[in-house]
Amino acid sequence: MSEGFPEAEYAARVARAQDGLAALSAGALLITTEADIRYFTGFLTRFWESPSRSWFLIVPARGKPIAVIPSIGQPLMASTWIDDIRTWPAPRPADDGVSLLIDALQEVGEPVVLPMGYETHLRMPLADFDRVRAQIDIRPDKGLMARLRAIKSPAETARIADTCALAGRAFDRMGEIAQPGVALSQVFRAFQRLLLEEGADWVPYLAGGAGPWGYSDVISPAPETPLALGDVVMLDTGAIRAGYFCDFDRNFAIGAASVEAQSAHARLIEATAAGFEAARPGAMARDVWQAMANIVGRGDGAGRMGHGLGMQLTEGLSLTPEDTSVLQPGMVITLEPYVETRDGCLMVHEENIAITAEGATPLTSFSAPDIPVLT
Amino acid sequence: MSEGFPEAEYAARVARAQDGLAALSAGALLITTEADIRYFTGFLTRFWESPSRSWFLIVPARGKPIAVIPSIGQPLMASTWIDDIRTWPAPRPADDGVSLLIDALQEVGEPVVLPMGYETHLRMPLADFDRVRAQIDIRPDKGLMARLRAIKSPAETARIADTCALAGRAFDRMGEIAQPGVALSQVFRAFQRLLLEEGADWVPYLAGGAGPWGYSDVISPAPETPLALGDVVMLDTGAIRAGYFCDFDRNFAIGAASVEAQSAHARLIEATAAGFEAARPGAMARDVWQAMANIVGRGDGAGRMGHGLGMQLTEGLSLTPEDTSVLQPGMVITLEPYVETRDGCLMVHEENIAITAEGATPLTSFSAPDIPVLT
Repeated sequence: MSEGFPEAEYAARVARAQDGLAALSAGALLITTEADIRYFTGFLTRFWESPSRSWFLIVPARGKPIAVIPSIGQPLMASTWIDDIRTWPAPRPADDGVSLLIDALQEVGEPVVLPMGYETHLRMPLADFDRVRAQIDIRPDKGLMARLRAIKSPAETARIADTCALAGRAFDRMGEIAQPGVALSQVFRAFQRLLLEEGADWVPYLAGGAGPWGYSDVISPAPETPLALGDVVMLDTGAIRAGYFCDFDRNFAIGAASVEAQSAHARLIEATAAGFEAARPGAMARDVWQAMANIVGRGDGAGRMGHGLGMQLTEGLSLTPEDTSVLQPGMVITLEPYVETRDGCLMVHEENIAITAEGATPLTSFSAPDIPVLT
Repeated sequence: MSEGFPEAEYAARVARAQDGLAALSAGALLITTEADIRYFTGFLTRFWESPSRSWFLIVPARGKPIAVIPSIGQPLMASTWIDDIRTWPAPRPADDGVSLLIDALQEVGEPVVLPMGYETHLRMPLADFDRVRAQIDIRPDKGLMARLRAIKSPAETARIADTCALAGRAFDRMGEIAQPGVALSQVFRAFQRLLLEEGADWVPYLAGGAGPWGYSDVISPAPETPLALGDVVMLDTGAIRAGYFCDFDRNFAIGAASVEAQSAHARLIEATAAGFEAARPGAMARDVWQAMANIVGRGDGAGRMGHGLGMQLTEGLSLTPEDTSVLQPGMVITLEPYVETRDGCLMVHEENIAITAEGATPLTSFSAPDIPVLT
């Protein structure tokens, strides 16, 4: 369950970051979130679930990263390739690492750049950050961190493929857990058990829904409602193995599917195939969206039709009509078309792919047009 | 799995918040994080795992809260008691709800207060927040949000007790999954399965360790190392049911425990009992820490000996020598003493309790001094 890439992987990431810092004429990159800190260090722990402590990593313009972290994290950080580890006994609200951080930033030199744009957040109290910003020249990283993480190394893509494979095996076992009369909440619990049995380290995300013509939304928690003959049940999972996510879903019919559901499923598979064809280096995110929208329609604008994937469930570009991000080899994305079946009901389908030099390669075993029937 | 408190529960929370806003002469409270938004609305979803979209809730000085959220969340938010729901088609990086939020804040009136102190973070891009702050008078909430959440209603405490009970049943089944030769990573997977079988909705947190004299830290991911006769294995879980956490651990000996481990366990149980005695209304957090430290020593300062618990794995006060927070009826806390067994090895024990008018009541079934032996 440790992240455990070779040191050269992290060193290459730092070198790319330092190229970016040079272009920005910056003294350092400051980061505060789980995935960004792990990206440069390999520091993998579920302890981030606790909001009580701030964690900082400084990537200087030259040299190795400096960790400024709570002392409880010292042994684990010391097991990574990082050797400059500065700690304080957190939580210590009066000075929760702030003065230690300011000292370190002054040492490496200003200006300091920070991810502050789309999809980022600052994982520290704003009052603490305002104290730092009063003393240190802090500027936007202009998307540097996001650009680094968008291009996966072969080792990263292999991790995502592993996670996709284990989730695929769990989906293959849906017949064991989904029968008429079983509450959807129990199906959710049982599916998480299957994911763990198939090798997930943990299951940060599971969503889904059920009904004869699909489901009313794709983010609600599972209701106690029992599955009925003729329902379509969809599960969408973000499982983790060795620090990398999959994010895909599958639809199943309980006993039999309505004509509407069968037709919608076939259309979703057709749209996914069209998205896959369009997903090649040089294409824009919106081109892939368009290829799918040509088949399923624009929808109501409420959902994008895919996104980047990796150390987080969603990261990077969005398949929307507006996103002009250019696909590049090494990107890993989801294709996630959705279609309305009836007023207030929709169905969604999702696959994961990697962009290659020639086009794209599936990381999931793509579904067939016929909705699988559980009997 | 829906949160589903009666509307009166949420209305009472809003009324308490509005008392606090009046004391601050503020026009509204702005919140951006999962637990804070759920606290006032009941909006429960795992969709927060995706960092792609910002979510906002405004608690005005008078009237019901206003949700300013991505349109993908509209159906679920509409199923709560909230009726003023304003949406935009996120993600839309050029204006990801910022202008909608500014309009709503200007409507309710300034100044607007925001949680920005200890243990908080702002779940939105900093660049977006800077745009808001340029137009709206935003000030610290001076701990208002934290004070509200620190005092649990009886319904909330009952939820935490339910989650503690299911995790207790999972711990009772440790003998099914922990034998010599089983990799600790497999024990972690299997224990998450047990939690789900016993009724957890999901398992956001699991940590632990194993070794003849304890473990080197309590945040590392599980290694592939197989359990050996004579090991002490500890699992520390934060499971969720109906939106509320437990957070406690148990130690087990594989076959037999070393003298050091037996003695350390007995001391931890004694310290927990002393902490429980000290935990009563009017006592300070540091008094409870002192009662436990009297038995196990101060340690190296790296870890607190307990903390608040509820909608998050850790929240609110800390049992440290510095924390002067006063215990009040309705608070739910953990008691978590730790002791060094040998250089570089420690053992930890944790129980969950609720502060009552008379003293405290256990939410977990307190462990006995003898370390349970799995044979």
